[in-house]
Amino acid sequence: MKRIEDFKSIIDRYEIIFFDAFGVLKTHSGLLPGIERTFAYLEDQKKEYYIVTNDASRSPAQLADSYHVKGLHAISADRIISSGQLTKEYLELKVEGDYVAYLGTDESAHYIESAGLKTLPVRDVNNSNIDKVNALVFLDDEGFNWFDDLNKAVNILRKRTIPAIVANTDYAYPVSKQDVGIAIGGLAEMIETIVGKKFIRFGKPDSQMFMFAYDLIREYRPITKKEIVMVGDTLETDIVGGNKFGLDTVLVLSGNTLPKDADNRIQTTGIVPTYICDSAVLGPEALNL
Amino acid sequence: MKRIEDFKSIIDRYEIIFFDAFGVLKTHSGLLPGIERTFAYLEDQKKEYYIVTNDASRSPAQLADSYHVKGLHAISADRIISSGQLTKEYLELKVEGDYVAYLGTDESAHYIESAGLKTLPVRDVNNSNIDKVNALVFLDDEGFNWFDDLNKAVNILRKRTIPAIVANTDYAYPVSKQDVGIAIGGLAEMIETIVGKKFIRFGKPDSQMFMFAYDLIREYRPITKKEIVMVGDTLETDIVGGNKFGLDTVLVLSGNTLPKDADNRIQTTGIVPTYICDSAVLGPEALNL
Amino acid sequence: MKRIEDFKSIIDRYEIIFFDAFGVLKTHSGLLPGIERTFAYLEDQKKEYYIVTNDASRSPAQLADSYHVKGLHAISADRIISSGQLTKEYLELKVEGDYVAYLGTDESAHYIESAGLKTLPVRDVNNSNIDKVNALVFLDDEGFNWFDDLNKAVNILRKRTIPAIVANTDYAYPVSKQDVGIAIGGLAEMIETIVGKKFIRFGKPDSQMFMFAYDLIREYRPITKKEIVMVGDTLETDIVGGNKFGLDTVLVLSGNTLPKDADNRIQTTGIVPTYICDSAVLGPEALNL
Amino acid sequence: MKRIEDFKSIIDRYEIIFFDAFGVLKTHSGLLPGIERTFAYLEDQKKEYYIVTNDASRSPAQLADSYHVKGLHAISADRIISSGQLTKEYLELKVEGDYVAYLGTDESAHYIESAGLKTLPVRDVNNSNIDKVNALVFLDDEGFNWFDDLNKAVNILRKRTIPAIVANTDYAYPVSKQDVGIAIGGLAEMIETIVGKKFIRFGKPDSQMFMFAYDLIREYRPITKKEIVMVGDTLETDIVGGNKFGLDTVLVLSGNTLPKDADNRIQTTGIVPTYICDSAVLGPEALNL
Repeated sequence: MKRIEDFKSIIDRYEIIFFDAFGVLKTHSGLLPGIERTFAYLEDQKKEYYIVTNDASRSPAQLADSYHVKGLHAISADRIISSGQLTKEYLELKVEGDYVAYLGTDESAHYIESAGLKTLPVRDVNNSNIDKVNALVFLDDEGFNWFDDLNKAVNILRKRTIPAIVANTDYAYPVSKQDVGIAIGGLAEMIETIVGKKFIRFGKPDSQMFMFAYDLIREYRPITKKEIVMVGDTLETDIVGGNKFGLDTVLVLSGNTLPKDADNRIQTTGIVPTYICDSAVLGPEALNL
Repeated sequence: MKRIEDFKSIIDRYEIIFFDAFGVLKTHSGLLPGIERTFAYLEDQKKEYYIVTNDASRSPAQLADSYHVKGLHAISADRIISSGQLTKEYLELKVEGDYVAYLGTDESAHYIESAGLKTLPVRDVNNSNIDKVNALVFLDDEGFNWFDDLNKAVNILRKRTIPAIVANTDYAYPVSKQDVGIAIGGLAEMIETIVGKKFIRFGKPDSQMFMFAYDLIREYRPITKKEIVMVGDTLETDIVGGNKFGLDTVLVLSGNTLPKDADNRIQTTGIVPTYICDSAVLGPEALNL
Repeated sequence: MKRIEDFKSIIDRYEIIFFDAFGVLKTHSGLLPGIERTFAYLEDQKKEYYIVTNDASRSPAQLADSYHVKGLHAISADRIISSGQLTKEYLELKVEGDYVAYLGTDESAHYIESAGLKTLPVRDVNNSNIDKVNALVFLDDEGFNWFDDLNKAVNILRKRTIPAIVANTDYAYPVSKQDVGIAIGGLAEMIETIVGKKFIRFGKPDSQMFMFAYDLIREYRPITKKEIVMVGDTLETDIVGGNKFGLDTVLVLSGNTLPKDADNRIQTTGIVPTYICDSAVLGPEALNL
Repeated sequence: MKRIEDFKSIIDRYEIIFFDAFGVLKTHSGLLPGIERTFAYLEDQKKEYYIVTNDASRSPAQLADSYHVKGLHAISADRIISSGQLTKEYLELKVEGDYVAYLGTDESAHYIESAGLKTLPVRDVNNSNIDKVNALVFLDDEGFNWFDDLNKAVNILRKRTIPAIVANTDYAYPVSKQDVGIAIGGLAEMIETIVGKKFIRFGKPDSQMFMFAYDLIREYRPITKKEIVMVGDTLETDIVGGNKFGLDTVLVLSGNTLPKDADNRIQTTGIVPTYICDSAVLGPEALNL
């Protein structure tokens, strides 16, 4: 583990950079000031980058738009790898016919539709169509009535032996400087415990997420794991997942892991990043090339 | 483990009978037909009985009423030991001053009020009173908006270092012949995982529940554990809890454990009741004394 | 939560003091210097005290001897409540006939013998006697060959549907200033996971441990929970267990919880002692009465 | 889910077959009688096959030899994908310099040596070399003294902030018709709980295992997930892992999952194979082509 003063030296050392989104590029108050310089430098140096995110609430195009409206135009839809895309791939490969029930917003249902399947919000499942439901997907914590639809999801899974897929493994996510919200991963785990069945989960730290990104890249260029670095603010997802997949990793201290806690958290968890760096933001001088 | 044809012989063998409620005395469709004979025989034989239940949704008086309206008058409030009463005792002994926040119905707040503390529904916690909240109690799954108040409970517990008490350890409960509902114990476990703090839980199988009942009895008569038997339909709560406390136990097959599954479930879990009996209902001939 | 300078004021405030042993009265290097003054003051003030310990490796008499040889004579066998005694009570009430198999030292088998049952070390279980084994008890991490006998214990429990009792819930214990040892509670949990059965565990933080001590006292004098305080060095066992049983609690900083970590640990775990005190040792002036 | 009478039709439907080893190709009493016909047919049909196994006790060459001595010559070392190879890849990519400590047999240390690192059995770790230990690998349950070396492994991981890698996720494995043995995955999980650090685990059901095999194939031929089928006897490893990776799956009933339990286990776990087939053995007529 090495402390790095300047994130620029990380970019110089690798061909491809994977970034976590929240806590690395943005916080509840918007983009990290100066983060656009990082992407300007990446473009200038012809380095590639991907945003690897446990966010299945919206399509990659909608996620990209959310950066554009904040003034960061470098992040296009094809630069975003979301856990929703692994869900889509699973549905394409493994689920046939009729309906896929879901919990989440209408936007999140994109990942089911784009797999060529018919969507059915859990609220609309009833005795006449329950036998045509071939999977249940947990996409997002919004877009449904928790009391009605979480209870209904439990009973659908007790009656039907179908795969239950969780498109975001996170238990909670920040909603303001002070507060967090319960994420769909937390709700899904509660239901998994109650019904006693094994759910299929997509998202960091699971290495299938990194493999998906790695495969995408190898479709158009040869690359080795040694040439990729994962940048994240959370030891338990970004860093341990990147490590396990065989990537070098950078812990940045602009999000979940506070500067004062970093050493202690690393020692306590035994999750060791390759580098620690204050943030992924480059100083203005980085662009005087 | 012994199979018993007639529950009467169980009553004859012990001085005091503890009954679980749901699946033993009643189901979703009402009282078990004939269960009044069991209580008539208990009265006739001058045997004592208690209902030991993980139900903190209502006061013992209201729980007793729910039997009376169905025609079972033997069960008075002082015969009911609910996990809510352990919560009340905890609050009396361990929590002082100001407010106790809660999730549950107004009726369930009885257990806080009767401990002499001021109740505050989670929905009414705000910046001006959060510092006066000295405990948060999970009482019942109804009486609040899940989305708003579960998220709020998470954030209260992130901001305040106060005890969180779960007045019902169950994860789910039957709501109809086909369906279950998520119980407050399941919701509380999700929040415990998210906030990473240790909650205090009351209810079977925890032996403090049995101890509470045992202590109540010893206040007015001497008794030994050998003279008490616990009757329940669930291996993982009634039977393992009773066993651990040192009581003899009867598994009845009128609820959660189906007759065809009983032997397999016992072998798989390693939880062995002293007796197995079809149900706690006595035949009409039992009263021809 | 209140910081207390002098442990004397704790003694003055309660009728009965429960002490954890390791980290409170002694460490790997012997008794805490001066701890004999605490017991001298207790005797002088006619306050009662009990050692409440997750240690089933030896009988209470042998445990008491271990204090006597170090020069602390106040602690007699009848002052020691060990998780082994709950095991003994369980065996007396719930296990009949023939053999109880065990993992542990010969000394630890005391708790089986004193329940009037025949002991059989796991190493001596074979095809000719396995059907006579009516319980398996995990007593101590020493006294057997781990490879042979842990594997054998797994297979006994796969073949026989009998209760498995864990006489010490701890996962590890200190063996020197630097090192810990794996405790029988850790070994038992591994085997429980492998065989998939539900084990019965005795020891703090489980409240049955405190109940056992409370009951012992009430046999010879009336007492309320408000008159008892639990003193321990570990939030996750001593403090949370004492709190849940309804006792006031004192966290001392002479063992597991370091002074620099105490506040942070309390906030992180949400386990709040009634008092924090540097140690249970009284200053020499305490005895100038 | 479809029941298939003849495993031949599975082979006809896919280009590449992944086989679990134990319970599919062999049992404690040796090879499944007739399994050589399956491989003869695979060769005849020019279908490819891999053995995908959670076995890091020996090198692929030694594992292949174990089939050859039983008379099955089709399985060469390059047909075997073991969780040890993922461990080797991790060590190559992520661990530098000096020593890797390990628990396991000398044979299992092959996976460390072949990564170009120096091996150090846990028994030989001491104060003079502990600071040069850069990783600890759990390879196999044999080859060391459990009491001495499991305790030592705990203390190494408390003193050094280094990755701990588990080369086999299994908790137990069959050692005879009646008995199982505790596997290194079970021992490692106990130690992970005790030290409270996050270990890195390789082996089914983790999808990185399937990805490794998939990548190996793609180095010499194009293939899609739709052309591969995973054959296994265990729902919780082979089937759920294959499903999650996006492969079709076949549950065979020649090992862990008994014919009488299959439907119930599928319903209870919610893990649904694409096909169920009695075994992977072809009838003699399959070769009359």
